[in-house]
Amino acid sequence: MLPDRSFFDRLADAAKAETMPRFRTDACVTNKLQGGFDPVTEADQSAEAAIRALIESAYPEHGILGEEHGNVGLDREHVWVIDPIDGTRAFISGLPVWGTLIGLYRNGEAIMGLMDQPFTGERYFADGERSVYRGPGGEKVLRTRDCGGLSDAVLFTTSPHLYTGEIKERFEALQSEVRLFRYGCDCYAFALLAAGHVDLVIECGLKPYDVGGLIPLIEQAGGIITDWQGGPAEMGGEVIAAGSREVHAQALEMLRSR
Amino acid sequence: MLPDRSFFDRLADAAKAETMPRFRTDACVTNKLQGGFDPVTEADQSAEAAIRALIESAYPEHGILGEEHGNVGLDREHVWVIDPIDGTRAFISGLPVWGTLIGLYRNGEAIMGLMDQPFTGERYFADGERSVYRGPGGEKVLRTRDCGGLSDAVLFTTSPHLYTGEIKERFEALQSEVRLFRYGCDCYAFALLAAGHVDLVIECGLKPYDVGGLIPLIEQAGGIITDWQGGPAEMGGEVIAAGSREVHAQALEMLRSR
Repeated sequence: MLPDRSFFDRLADAAKAETMPRFRTDACVTNKLQGGFDPVTEADQSAEAAIRALIESAYPEHGILGEEHGNVGLDREHVWVIDPIDGTRAFISGLPVWGTLIGLYRNGEAIMGLMDQPFTGERYFADGERSVYRGPGGEKVLRTRDCGGLSDAVLFTTSPHLYTGEIKERFEALQSEVRLFRYGCDCYAFALLAAGHVDLVIECGLKPYDVGGLIPLIEQAGGIITDWQGGPAEMGGEVIAAGSREVHAQALEMLRSR
Repeated sequence: MLPDRSFFDRLADAAKAETMPRFRTDACVTNKLQGGFDPVTEADQSAEAAIRALIESAYPEHGILGEEHGNVGLDREHVWVIDPIDGTRAFISGLPVWGTLIGLYRNGEAIMGLMDQPFTGERYFADGERSVYRGPGGEKVLRTRDCGGLSDAVLFTTSPHLYTGEIKERFEALQSEVRLFRYGCDCYAFALLAAGHVDLVIECGLKPYDVGGLIPLIEQAGGIITDWQGGPAEMGGEVIAAGSREVHAQALEMLRSR
């Protein structure tokens, strides 16, 4: 039997209990090379450990792919894909646009997912059929929006410096076509897309755990998320999410390699 | 007599009543050139009108410098400096890093200030002597931090694309020296600096209302904010804020024109 919303909530609450006490603490010494107290690494590792303990107890037959503590049983039918803190640079900087990502894959396809931002109190959850928001302003079912075309699109990407070579050229050509672009939001940008506030999120070099929890949120809100060739996004890499098929197709036309 | 915290709270609450109902509404049509429904302009204008009405009633002898509704009595001893929504691009994108800025100048010097982010429930206020935070996690007195030097600094700027020509070269040289840099947070970055979470905020092309409410927050938390020549920041332009005098001096050395 698949987990329900209350089980995902238990996972998110367990992570929150580890992350929030370490958020906006004195994080000046966060350079891993320097050693010493490193709140973001502590928060990352202990949050993932808390999530894994609950999963292993309730679903010992499932596999787990996690950022911090390695992989178990990736060939099993169900695999959990976990990023305890997506957006560690935001976390370090005190900026509440990081999130805890938890996805559930079945035979390689992301079918349920959650993004939690505990400082703002926002929780985005896809239950297999629909995506729901809880947070300031209450609870609501999420729908992506169709802005009509690239020239009316609001685009997010984490940083323009992550692109190099040919994909940089393609990304910058696309960026010059949209109405508004913004940098620096990691998973939070995907959540805003699921909620219908932005139109395009484009990233490169993602790991599966950077995107696994987000794919169901976007798809079950009516959006589309693929790699830059139009294939599945479940394994990360170059990823594009759009609020509508038309905007996705227009963007893909510019990003796709030939 | 100078206003107290409760008066500033009334101003922020009045602005919030105008901004929050329009935040994360269907803002797809926000292009002013296209006409039609424009929630961010509506929110901007009505929030400033609400703030001005309270000030004009309580302090008719004060001047007002506002983004949306022009200037009154800029030669008076006390002048209020208002940006109802700093970070309109964040507001449009659903990202809760915009803020309402309210500063009070006496003889051209910023002496009291407030930054309010109503979605996260954060309010930063400088009362003339100290800076205080209220929000998730409770209330606390703010202190900037001293990270020791540029190579350990976390730097924020709104966008690398705002710099051109010679100031772009100087900014990029500085950016390459810091430990971590992030884009895209407008006033929220200054508030994080006042709270001791980041070390440097550098901006160009600011208007007085972009910075007037923030100067007291930073100075009264122990930080320093000036223009790129080391002079007062009250009139905007190229602005640098730092958590400590040493980091400020190091950064200024790279930014200053010769």
